[in-house]
Amino acid sequence: MAVRKFPIITETDALSIERGSTVELEKGGHVTPLAQDTLRERRVTVVCAGTADPSIPADLAPVSPVRRVAIGSDHTGVKLKTDLIAHLRQQGVAVDDLGTNGTDAVDYPDIAAAVAKSVTRKESDAGIVIDGAGLGSAIAANKIRGCRATMCTNVTLARYSREHNGANVLSLGSTLVETADAKAIVDMFLTTPTSEPRYLRRLLKVRRLEETF
Amino acid sequence: MAVRKFPIITETDALSIERGSTVELEKGGHVTPLAQDTLRERRVTVVCAGTADPSIPADLAPVSPVRRVAIGSDHTGVKLKTDLIAHLRQQGVAVDDLGTNGTDAVDYPDIAAAVAKSVTRKESDAGIVIDGAGLGSAIAANKIRGCRATMCTNVTLARYSREHNGANVLSLGSTLVETADAKAIVDMFLTTPTSEPRYLRRLLKVRRLEETF
Repeated sequence: MAVRKFPIITETDALSIERGSTVELEKGGHVTPLAQDTLRERRVTVVCAGTADPSIPADLAPVSPVRRVAIGSDHTGVKLKTDLIAHLRQQGVAVDDLGTNGTDAVDYPDIAAAVAKSVTRKESDAGIVIDGAGLGSAIAANKIRGCRATMCTNVTLARYSREHNGANVLSLGSTLVETADAKAIVDMFLTTPTSEPRYLRRLLKVRRLEETF
Repeated sequence: MAVRKFPIITETDALSIERGSTVELEKGGHVTPLAQDTLRERRVTVVCAGTADPSIPADLAPVSPVRRVAIGSDHTGVKLKTDLIAHLRQQGVAVDDLGTNGTDAVDYPDIAAAVAKSVTRKESDAGIVIDGAGLGSAIAANKIRGCRATMCTNVTLARYSREHNGANVLSLGSTLVETADAKAIVDMFLTTPTSEPRYLRRLLKVRRLEETF
Protein backbone atom coordinates (compact mmCIF):
# COMPACT_ATOMS: atom_id res chain seq x y z
CA MET A 1 0.00 0.00 0.00
CA ALA A 2 1.53 3.30 -1.10
CA VAL A 3 1.57 6.19 1.35
CA ARG A 4 -1.13 8.78 0.52
CA LYS A 5 0.10 12.36 0.03
CA PHE A 6 -1.98 15.52 0.70
CA PRO A 7 -1.45 19.23 -0.08
CA ILE A 8 -3.96 20.01 2.67
CA ILE A 9 -5.88 17.74 5.03
CA THR A 10 -9.49 18.73 5.68
CA GLU A 11 -11.99 17.05 7.96
CA THR A 12 -13.37 15.14 4.96
CA ASP A 13 -9.87 13.96 4.05
CA ALA A 14 -9.18 13.01 7.67
CA LEU A 15 -12.28 10.82 7.77
CA SER A 16 -11.15 9.02 4.59
CA ILE A 17 -7.71 8.11 5.95
CA GLU A 18 -7.39 4.61 7.36
CA ARG A 19 -7.16 4.43 11.15
CA GLY A 20 -3.62 3.96 12.45
CA SER A 21 -1.96 4.67 9.11
CA THR A 22 0.72 7.16 8.06
CA VAL A 23 0.17 9.86 5.40
CA GLU A 24 2.40 12.54 3.92
CA LEU A 25 1.73 16.28 3.91
CA GLU A 26 3.26 18.24 1.02
CA LYS A 27 5.72 21.04 1.73
CA GLY A 28 3.79 24.20 2.66
CA GLY A 29 0.61 22.18 3.21
CA HIS A 30 -1.55 22.37 6.31
CA VAL A 31 -4.09 20.49 8.37
CA THR A 32 -7.35 22.19 9.38
CA PRO A 33 -8.03 22.39 13.15
CA LEU A 34 -11.05 20.09 12.93
CA ALA A 35 -9.02 17.58 10.87
CA GLN A 36 -6.26 17.69 13.49
CA ASP A 37 -8.69 16.42 16.13
CA THR A 38 -10.00 13.73 13.80
CA LEU A 39 -6.50 12.57 12.83
CA ARG A 40 -5.56 12.35 16.49
CA GLU A 41 -8.69 10.41 17.28
CA ARG A 42 -8.01 8.03 14.34
CA ARG A 43 -4.30 7.66 15.34
CA VAL A 44 -3.12 8.84 11.93
CA THR A 45 0.55 9.82 11.71
CA VAL A 46 1.27 12.78 9.42
CA VAL A 47 4.85 13.14 8.13
CA CYS A 48 6.52 15.57 5.69
CA ALA A 49 6.31 14.57 2.03
CA GLY A 50 9.23 12.35 1.02
CA THR A 51 10.06 11.17 4.54
CA ALA A 52 7.85 8.08 4.59
CA ASP A 53 9.64 5.06 3.07
CA PRO A 54 7.38 4.06 0.14
CA SER A 55 8.51 0.44 0.41
CA ILE A 56 7.16 0.23 3.95
CA PRO A 57 3.35 -0.07 4.11
CA ALA A 58 1.76 2.70 6.16
CA ASP A 59 0.00 0.20 8.42
CA LEU A 60 3.07 -1.91 9.22
CA ALA A 61 4.25 -0.23 12.42
CA PRO A 62 1.95 -0.74 15.40
CA VAL A 63 -0.39 2.16 16.17
CA SER A 64 1.21 4.74 18.46
CA PRO A 65 0.21 6.42 20.70
CA VAL A 66 -2.14 3.75 21.96
CA ARG A 67 -5.56 5.04 23.05
CA ARG A 68 -7.71 1.92 22.81
CA VAL A 69 -6.65 -1.41 24.31
CA ALA A 70 -8.32 -4.83 24.10
CA ILE A 71 -7.54 -7.04 27.08
CA GLY A 72 -8.31 -10.67 27.89
CA SER A 73 -7.16 -13.34 30.32
CA ASP A 74 -7.78 -16.93 31.18
CA HIS A 75 -9.11 -17.88 34.63
CA THR A 76 -5.66 -17.49 36.23
CA GLY A 77 -5.37 -13.84 35.23
CA VAL A 78 -8.69 -12.27 36.20
CA LYS A 79 -7.28 -10.36 39.18
CA LEU A 80 -4.32 -8.98 37.21
CA LYS A 81 -6.61 -8.05 34.32
CA THR A 82 -8.93 -6.13 36.67
CA ASP A 83 -5.96 -4.21 38.13
CA LEU A 84 -4.58 -3.37 34.67
CA ILE A 85 -7.97 -2.18 33.39
CA ALA A 86 -8.25 0.27 36.31
CA HIS A 87 -4.66 1.41 35.72
CA LEU A 88 -5.28 2.04 32.02
CA ARG A 89 -8.63 3.80 32.45
CA GLN A 90 -7.02 6.08 35.04
CA GLN A 91 -4.69 7.22 32.26
CA GLY A 92 -7.57 7.89 29.87
CA VAL A 93 -6.99 4.77 27.76
CA ALA A 94 -10.20 3.18 26.47
CA VAL A 95 -10.26 -0.50 27.44
CA ASP A 96 -12.30 -3.29 25.87
CA ASP A 97 -12.51 -6.17 28.36
CA LEU A 98 -12.89 -9.41 26.40
CA GLY A 99 -13.11 -11.63 29.50
CA THR A 100 -12.94 -14.01 31.19
CA ASN A 101 -14.42 -12.69 34.40
CA GLY A 102 -15.24 -15.83 36.32
CA THR A 103 -13.35 -18.66 37.97
CA ASP A 104 -14.33 -21.37 35.47
CA ALA A 105 -11.41 -22.63 33.40
CA VAL A 106 -11.25 -21.14 29.89
CA ASP A 107 -8.82 -22.00 27.12
CA TYR A 108 -6.07 -19.46 26.43
CA PRO A 109 -6.28 -19.87 22.61
CA ASP A 110 -9.88 -18.57 22.62
CA ILE A 111 -9.06 -15.46 24.65
CA ALA A 112 -5.79 -14.72 22.86
CA ALA A 113 -7.43 -15.01 19.44
CA ALA A 114 -10.25 -12.64 20.44
CA VAL A 115 -7.77 -10.00 21.61
CA ALA A 116 -5.50 -10.44 18.57
CA LYS A 117 -8.45 -10.12 16.18
CA SER A 118 -9.63 -6.94 17.91
CA VAL A 119 -6.21 -5.43 17.10
CA THR A 120 -5.91 -6.71 13.54
CA ARG A 121 -9.46 -5.54 12.78
CA LYS A 122 -8.36 -2.10 14.08
CA GLU A 123 -11.02 -2.16 16.78
CA SER A 124 -8.19 -1.46 19.22
CA ASP A 125 -4.69 -0.01 18.91
CA ALA A 126 -2.99 -2.74 20.96
CA GLY A 127 -3.86 -5.84 22.96
CA ILE A 128 -2.96 -7.44 26.27
CA VAL A 129 -3.37 -11.19 26.90
CA ILE A 130 -2.83 -12.95 30.21
CA ASP A 131 -2.53 -16.60 31.19
CA GLY A 132 -0.49 -18.44 33.80
CA ALA A 133 2.89 -17.96 32.14
CA GLY A 134 1.95 -15.89 29.10
CA LEU A 135 3.65 -18.38 26.78
CA GLY A 136 0.60 -20.09 25.29
CA SER A 137 -1.30 -16.86 24.71
CA ALA A 138 1.66 -15.43 22.79
CA ILE A 139 1.76 -18.52 20.56
CA ALA A 140 -1.99 -18.39 19.93
CA ALA A 141 -2.11 -14.62 19.28
CA ASN A 142 0.73 -14.92 16.77
CA LYS A 143 -1.37 -17.38 14.77
CA ILE A 144 -3.64 -14.46 13.82
CA ARG A 145 -2.54 -12.66 10.65
CA GLY A 146 -1.25 -9.18 11.42
CA CYS A 147 -0.74 -9.88 15.10
CA ARG A 148 2.77 -9.76 16.55
CA ALA A 149 2.68 -10.90 20.17
CA THR A 150 5.51 -11.04 22.68
CA MET A 151 5.67 -12.49 26.18
CA CYS A 152 7.35 -9.94 28.45
CA THR A 153 8.53 -10.44 32.02
CA ASN A 154 10.15 -7.02 32.42
CA VAL A 155 10.17 -3.49 30.99
CA THR A 156 13.29 -4.07 28.90
CA LEU A 157 11.58 -6.85 26.96
CA ALA A 158 8.51 -4.61 26.59
CA ARG A 159 10.67 -1.85 25.10
CA TYR A 160 12.49 -4.24 22.73
CA SER A 161 9.14 -5.74 21.69
CA ARG A 162 8.02 -2.40 20.36
CA GLU A 163 11.28 -0.77 19.19
CA HIS A 164 12.61 -3.85 17.41
CA ASN A 165 9.66 -6.13 16.75
CA GLY A 166 6.62 -3.91 16.25
CA ALA A 167 4.60 -6.00 18.69
CA ASN A 168 0.93 -5.06 18.89
CA VAL A 169 -0.09 -7.61 21.54
CA LEU A 170 1.59 -7.98 24.93
CA SER A 171 1.38 -11.32 26.72
CA LEU A 172 1.77 -11.52 30.49
CA GLY A 173 2.09 -14.44 32.90
CA SER A 174 -0.17 -13.97 35.91
CA THR A 175 2.01 -16.28 38.02
CA LEU A 176 5.27 -14.64 36.88
CA VAL A 177 4.81 -10.90 37.33
CA GLU A 178 3.72 -8.79 40.29
CA THR A 179 0.95 -6.27 39.62
CA ALA A 180 3.26 -3.25 40.00
CA ASP A 181 5.73 -4.75 37.52
CA ALA A 182 2.92 -5.63 35.13
CA LYS A 183 1.75 -2.00 35.16
CA ALA A 184 5.27 -0.79 34.34
CA ILE A 185 5.57 -3.38 31.54
CA VAL A 186 2.21 -2.30 30.10
CA ASP A 187 3.15 1.40 30.27
CA MET A 188 6.45 0.80 28.47
CA PHE A 189 4.79 -1.38 25.85
CA LEU A 190 1.99 1.07 25.08
CA THR A 191 4.16 4.22 24.94
CA THR A 192 7.07 2.94 22.84
CA PRO A 193 6.73 3.41 19.08
CA THR A 194 8.31 1.34 16.29
CA SER A 195 10.02 3.69 13.87
CA GLU A 196 13.48 2.45 12.87
CA PRO A 197 13.37 1.63 9.09
CA ARG A 198 15.66 -1.44 9.32
CA TYR A 199 13.38 -2.97 11.95
CA LEU A 200 10.28 -2.14 9.93
CA ARG A 201 11.80 -3.85 6.90
CA ARG A 202 12.14 -7.04 9.00
CA LEU A 203 8.45 -6.75 9.93
CA LEU A 204 7.71 -6.84 6.21
CA LYS A 205 9.41 -10.25 6.13
CA VAL A 206 7.25 -11.41 9.04
CA ARG A 207 4.18 -10.24 7.11
CA ARG A 208 5.37 -12.21 4.09
CA LEU A 209 5.53 -15.36 6.26
CA GLU A 210 1.84 -14.82 7.04
CA GLU A 211 0.99 -14.61 3.38
CA THR A 212 2.14 -18.16 2.65
CA PHE A 213 -0.22 -20.84 3.77
CA MET B 1 -6.20 -38.07 12.17
CA ALA B 2 -7.27 -41.16 14.10
CA VAL B 3 -4.66 -43.09 16.07
CA ARG B 4 -3.60 -46.26 14.20
CA LYS B 5 -3.97 -49.53 16.13
CA PHE B 6 -1.83 -52.65 15.61
CA PRO B 7 -2.09 -56.28 16.88
CA ILE B 8 1.65 -56.62 16.13
CA ILE B 9 4.18 -54.14 14.80
CA THR B 10 6.66 -55.54 12.28
CA GLU B 11 9.53 -53.74 10.59
CA THR B 12 7.28 -53.11 7.57
CA ASP B 13 4.60 -51.64 9.83
CA ALA B 14 7.18 -49.51 11.64
CA LEU B 15 8.37 -48.02 8.36
CA SER B 16 4.78 -47.12 7.43
CA ILE B 17 4.12 -45.19 10.65
CA GLU B 18 4.54 -41.44 10.45
CA ARG B 19 7.63 -40.07 12.20
CA GLY B 20 6.94 -38.58 15.61
CA SER B 21 3.40 -39.96 15.83
CA THR B 22 1.67 -42.11 18.46
CA VAL B 23 0.15 -45.53 17.70
CA GLU B 24 -1.71 -48.07 19.79
CA LEU B 25 -0.73 -51.69 20.37
CA GLU B 26 -3.59 -54.12 21.06
CA LYS B 27 -3.67 -56.07 24.32
CA GLY B 28 -1.37 -59.09 24.04
CA GLY B 29 0.29 -57.64 20.94
CA HIS B 30 4.02 -57.28 20.46
CA VAL B 31 6.67 -55.35 18.57
CA THR B 32 9.42 -57.25 16.72
CA PRO B 33 13.01 -56.41 17.79
CA LEU B 34 13.88 -54.90 14.40
CA ALA B 35 10.68 -52.80 14.51
CA GLN B 36 11.60 -51.58 18.00
CA ASP B 37 14.80 -50.05 16.64
CA THR B 38 12.95 -48.48 13.74
CA LEU B 39 10.22 -47.06 15.96
CA ARG B 40 12.86 -45.55 18.23
CA GLU B 41 14.71 -44.07 15.27
CA ARG B 42 11.44 -42.62 13.92
CA ARG B 43 10.43 -41.28 17.39
CA VAL B 44 7.15 -43.20 17.33
CA THR B 45 5.35 -43.50 20.66
CA VAL B 46 3.57 -46.84 21.22
CA VAL B 47 0.80 -46.91 23.83
CA CYS B 48 -1.65 -49.60 24.99
CA ALA B 49 -4.86 -49.82 22.96
CA GLY B 50 -7.52 -47.52 24.33
CA THR B 51 -5.16 -45.20 26.17
CA ALA B 52 -4.61 -42.71 23.33
CA ASP B 53 -7.36 -40.06 23.21
CA PRO B 54 -8.90 -40.50 19.74
CA SER B 55 -9.91 -36.85 19.64
CA ILE B 56 -6.26 -35.80 19.92
CA PRO B 57 -4.29 -36.19 16.69
CA ALA B 58 -1.25 -38.41 17.08
CA ASP B 59 1.09 -35.71 15.76
CA LEU B 60 -0.15 -32.91 18.03
CA ALA B 61 2.30 -33.24 20.93
CA PRO B 62 5.87 -32.27 20.11
CA VAL B 63 8.23 -35.16 19.38
CA SER B 64 9.84 -36.54 22.53
CA PRO B 65 12.57 -37.57 23.17
CA VAL B 66 14.31 -35.12 20.87
CA ARG B 67 17.15 -36.64 18.86
CA ARG B 68 17.48 -34.20 15.95
CA VAL B 69 17.58 -30.44 16.42
CA ALA B 70 17.60 -27.64 13.84
CA ILE B 71 19.30 -24.49 15.07
CA GLY B 72 19.71 -21.00 13.61
CA SER B 73 20.67 -17.53 14.78
CA ASP B 74 21.04 -14.03 13.47
CA HIS B 75 24.44 -12.29 13.53
CA THR B 76 24.14 -11.51 17.26
CA GLY B 77 23.82 -15.18 18.24
CA VAL B 78 26.61 -16.95 16.35
CA LYS B 79 28.80 -17.51 19.42
CA LEU B 80 25.90 -18.85 21.51
CA LYS B 81 24.79 -21.08 18.64
CA THR B 82 28.28 -22.56 18.31
CA ASP B 83 28.39 -23.31 22.04
CA LEU B 84 24.94 -24.92 21.99
CA ILE B 85 25.77 -27.08 18.96
CA ALA B 86 28.85 -28.47 20.75
CA HIS B 87 26.77 -29.04 23.89
CA LEU B 88 24.06 -30.93 21.99
CA ARG B 89 26.43 -33.06 19.91
CA GLN B 90 28.25 -34.05 23.09
CA GLN B 91 24.94 -35.56 24.24
CA GLY B 92 24.49 -37.47 20.99
CA VAL B 93 21.82 -35.14 19.59
CA ALA B 94 22.05 -34.68 15.80
CA VAL B 95 22.19 -30.96 15.00
CA ASP B 96 21.37 -29.26 11.72
CA ASP B 97 23.04 -25.82 11.69
CA LEU B 98 20.96 -23.52 9.49
CA GLY B 99 23.28 -20.49 9.95
CA THR B 100 24.17 -17.70 10.03
CA ASN B 101 27.87 -18.19 10.60
CA GLY B 102 29.32 -14.82 9.72
CA THR B 103 29.23 -11.31 11.13
CA ASP B 104 27.10 -9.77 8.37
CA ALA B 105 23.64 -8.72 9.54
CA VAL B 106 20.89 -11.18 8.64
CA ASP B 107 17.16 -10.80 9.24
CA TYR B 108 15.68 -12.87 12.07
CA PRO B 109 12.48 -13.74 10.15
CA ASP B 110 14.52 -15.62 7.51
CA ILE B 111 16.42 -17.71 10.06
CA ALA B 112 13.41 -18.35 12.30
CA ALA B 113 11.29 -19.48 9.35
CA ALA B 114 13.99 -21.88 8.16
CA VAL B 115 14.23 -23.52 11.59
CA ALA B 116 10.45 -23.64 12.06
CA LYS B 117 9.96 -25.25 8.65
CA SER B 118 12.60 -27.88 9.41
CA VAL B 119 10.50 -28.89 12.44
CA THR B 120 7.10 -28.77 10.75
CA ARG B 121 8.44 -30.79 7.79
CA LYS B 122 9.65 -33.35 10.37
CA GLU B 123 13.26 -32.95 9.26
CA SER B 124 14.03 -32.29 12.93
CA ASP B 125 12.30 -33.08 16.22
CA ALA B 126 12.66 -29.56 17.67
CA GLY B 127 14.22 -26.22 16.79
CA ILE B 128 16.26 -23.51 18.47
CA VAL B 129 16.29 -19.90 17.20
CA ILE B 130 18.49 -17.10 18.51
CA ASP B 131 18.48 -13.34 18.03
CA GLY B 132 19.33 -10.42 20.30
CA ALA B 133 16.31 -10.76 22.58
CA GLY B 134 14.60 -13.83 21.15
CA LEU B 135 11.33 -11.93 20.79
CA GLY B 136 11.27 -11.39 17.03
CA SER B 137 12.34 -14.94 16.21
CA ALA B 138 9.51 -16.32 18.35
CA ILE B 139 6.98 -14.13 16.49
CA ALA B 140 8.35 -15.16 13.09
CA ALA B 141 8.57 -18.89 13.90
CA ASN B 142 4.97 -18.87 15.14
CA LYS B 143 3.87 -17.62 11.72
CA ILE B 144 4.76 -21.07 10.33
CA ARG B 145 1.86 -23.52 10.48
CA GLY B 146 2.52 -26.27 13.00
CA CYS B 147 5.24 -24.36 14.79
CA ARG B 148 4.75 -23.36 18.42
CA ALA B 149 7.63 -21.16 19.53
CA THR B 150 8.32 -19.70 22.96
CA MET B 151 10.93 -17.21 24.14
CA CYS B 152 12.48 -18.54 27.33
CA THR B 153 14.82 -16.72 29.70
CA ASN B 154 14.99 -19.47 32.32
CA VAL B 155 14.44 -23.20 32.86
CA THR B 156 11.01 -22.72 34.42
CA LEU B 157 9.70 -21.09 31.25
CA ALA B 158 11.33 -23.87 29.22
CA ARG B 159 9.51 -26.49 31.27
CA TYR B 160 6.16 -24.68 31.03
CA SER B 161 6.67 -24.26 27.28
CA ARG B 162 6.72 -27.99 26.84
CA GLU B 163 4.43 -29.27 29.61
CA HIS B 164 1.67 -26.73 28.99
CA ASN B 165 2.15 -25.36 25.48
CA GLY B 166 3.66 -28.16 23.41
CA ALA B 167 6.34 -25.82 22.08
CA ASN B 168 8.52 -27.33 19.35
CA VAL B 169 10.79 -24.31 18.82
CA LEU B 170 12.75 -22.57 21.59
CA SER B 171 13.74 -18.94 21.09
CA LEU B 172 16.70 -17.48 22.99
CA GLY B 173 18.03 -13.94 23.36
CA SER B 174 21.79 -13.85 22.89
CA THR B 175 22.04 -10.62 24.91
CA LEU B 176 19.77 -11.89 27.69
CA VAL B 177 21.08 -15.32 28.68
CA GLU B 178 24.53 -16.54 29.72
CA THR B 179 25.82 -19.61 27.88
CA ALA B 180 25.55 -21.86 30.95
CA ASP B 181 21.95 -20.78 31.50
CA ALA B 182 21.16 -21.26 27.81
CA LYS B 183 22.46 -24.84 27.99
CA ALA B 184 20.23 -25.56 31.01
CA ILE B 185 17.23 -23.99 29.24
CA VAL B 186 17.87 -26.09 26.12
CA ASP B 187 18.27 -29.30 28.17
CA MET B 188 14.98 -28.69 30.00
CA PHE B 189 13.16 -27.81 26.78
CA LEU B 190 14.38 -30.86 24.86
CA THR B 191 13.78 -33.41 27.62
CA THR B 192 10.30 -32.34 28.79
CA PRO B 193 7.37 -34.05 27.04
CA THR B 194 3.83 -32.71 26.53
CA SER B 195 1.38 -35.34 27.69
CA GLU B 196 -1.43 -33.85 29.78
CA PRO B 197 -4.72 -34.30 27.83
CA ARG B 198 -6.25 -30.96 28.88
CA TYR B 199 -3.17 -29.13 27.58
CA LEU B 200 -3.19 -31.13 24.36
CA ARG B 201 -6.83 -30.21 23.81
CA ARG B 202 -5.82 -26.52 23.97
CA LEU B 203 -3.14 -27.18 21.34
CA LEU B 204 -5.95 -28.41 19.10
CA LYS B 205 -7.48 -24.95 19.42
CA VAL B 206 -4.17 -23.36 18.46
CA ARG B 207 -4.05 -25.62 15.41
CA ARG B 208 -7.57 -24.53 14.50
CA LEU B 209 -6.41 -20.89 14.56
CA GLU B 210 -3.80 -21.83 11.96
CA GLU B 211 -6.43 -23.35 9.74
CA THR B 212 -8.28 -20.07 9.29
CA PHE B 213 -6.64 -17.65 6.91
